[in-house]
Amino acid sequence: MIFAGVDVGGTNIKIGLVDESGKIIISSSFKTGSERPFEEVAEDIIVNLHALCSKAEVNFKQLGGIGIGIPGTVDTAKGKVVAAANIGWYDVDIADYLSTATGLKCVVGNDANCAALGEYKYANAKGYRNIVFITLGTGIGSGIVIDGKLFSGMGSAGAEAGHLTLVYDGEPCNCGNKGCWERYASATALINQTRKAAEEAPNSILGRLVASEGKINGKTAFIAKEKGCPVASQVVEQYLQYIGAGLISLGNILHPEAFVIGGGISHEGEHIFQPIQAQLDEYLEKSGFLPRIDVVKASLGNSAGLLGAASLVMQ
Amino acid sequence: MIFAGVDVGGTNIKIGLVDESGKIIISSSFKTGSERPFEEVAEDIIVNLHALCSKAEVNFKQLGGIGIGIPGTVDTAKGKVVAAANIGWYDVDIADYLSTATGLKCVVGNDANCAALGEYKYANAKGYRNIVFITLGTGIGSGIVIDGKLFSGMGSAGAEAGHLTLVYDGEPCNCGNKGCWERYASATALINQTRKAAEEAPNSILGRLVASEGKINGKTAFIAKEKGCPVASQVVEQYLQYIGAGLISLGNILHPEAFVIGGGISHEGEHIFQPIQAQLDEYLEKSGFLPRIDVVKASLGNSAGLLGAASLVMQ
Repeated sequence: MIFAGVDVGGTNIKIGLVDESGKIIISSSFKTGSERPFEEVAEDIIVNLHALCSKAEVNFKQLGGIGIGIPGTVDTAKGKVVAAANIGWYDVDIADYLSTATGLKCVVGNDANCAALGEYKYANAKGYRNIVFITLGTGIGSGIVIDGKLFSGMGSAGAEAGHLTLVYDGEPCNCGNKGCWERYASATALINQTRKAAEEAPNSILGRLVASEGKINGKTAFIAKEKGCPVASQVVEQYLQYIGAGLISLGNILHPEAFVIGGGISHEGEHIFQPIQAQLDEYLEKSGFLPRIDVVKASLGNSAGLLGAASLVMQ
Repeated sequence: MIFAGVDVGGTNIKIGLVDESGKIIISSSFKTGSERPFEEVAEDIIVNLHALCSKAEVNFKQLGGIGIGIPGTVDTAKGKVVAAANIGWYDVDIADYLSTATGLKCVVGNDANCAALGEYKYANAKGYRNIVFITLGTGIGSGIVIDGKLFSGMGSAGAEAGHLTLVYDGEPCNCGNKGCWERYASATALINQTRKAAEEAPNSILGRLVASEGKINGKTAFIAKEKGCPVASQVVEQYLQYIGAGLISLGNILHPEAFVIGGGISHEGEHIFQPIQAQLDEYLEKSGFLPRIDVVKASLGNSAGLLGAASLVMQ
């Protein structure tokens, strides 16, 4: 049976047809146009799905269903988007709308949760029964899979690992709290930490790199560190400590078999995974008798959301 | 059907016969004597259960099973105590031992998890599908019930909310990490905070109370606060903030319907529940659209562990 996966982003919507083994048969993407009423966006989704079916010679009416990932708070049980600020959807019955319009079963979920499910089912996380998926991006997104099923708390309001407190009374966060993990361990946080270090040490390799490039991104500190810059080394080391500290905190609550890390930063590969794994191993050994938690790289990249959305409706 | 519940503590073992409705038919307790080999303790459990059956005129062989709660890390799937430092049990096949000796089904679990299950099934938490049970004692114990089932992570090594990081690089904890929640929000932490405040302000009502009583416990600060002591007020206020901050952090991960709070401190009642609930409500309202999380007092007291242990084997 073939299923449709829809990954709604602030800028683009990715859609695809996926078989039960997780193979993407065909996919495409189009602009979200989130300034429009949600019905127009929903109609675009339907039109584009029909187009994919036609190209792939799949009978639309025989699809197993449509799974949709949304960047916001979703009440999966009610098939409802509670609040998705990036696309301006509040209290939107997307699953109901699409299933009325198409006659197909529709299931909606949070995008990070969908990505977690995608990684769990089709990628690195295969073989684990319990994983926590973490994306280090603008903020920190997360998805929890327990015994092969998404767990997202009451009203799907949980699994917000980015808002674990890391520093009591620390940096203010958009969520209204202070010291949230994502203020220290997201890609945005790394960029801020890099900027601060470069400003404080303008003559360091890092300082000169930033001055010559005129911009900072998540790679800047890693590049300067590679060039032997002790200032950049310290930025990276502290940043990885922040990541590891949050994982230890999360591990004490959930103790999954693996943390699956995605987002741009994860492309730094062993430079980041080895120290984080070492920090976690050291803690678990000190605590005694606790099973190891693997720290692995997410491997589906941009397809995780789409695959996860499709697998929402397979469940 | 009648089930046996066994709540193994560092000092005493409580045992009881429980019916399916959660009524304790009969119970007793005896010294753990944890310096003995575990087999002797296990034999004591069996002898005492036979005695209870005889007194209650219940046929031992027709018991539905034995559920056992242990103060330590338990691998419930394997029926094994991984490590219980307080009673000196390491790598102990207690479920296997008891079921071989009695012919009954035996299930073993962590004691805080058993208490969580007891509260979930038989007390205040009734009606909620997802709860986090927290005891504020020497440390902070916790148990997570998701959809009516205990969740304790891989190898039952999760649900250790006491070791959530609250203060990055903060006070050292026995677990090897720094800044764990229980260093700030356990009864032990409150006692330390009370002592420090009394030493710094020996002429305050709190300082004089401590000097006259010659000892400090979890009630001292609350008593001085009642007498109008501003120093004690500040201790209590800060302490409740620490509790609330940890609950917010946990809420972001699990978003249960309720936090059920037990331990001696919970007897302070509305003095503590009202401010903590207000702190949590304020945060969830600021974040927008998030469902409320109730903060309620645990109500089974000393029986929660026994009832929960019995319900382990009913599952």
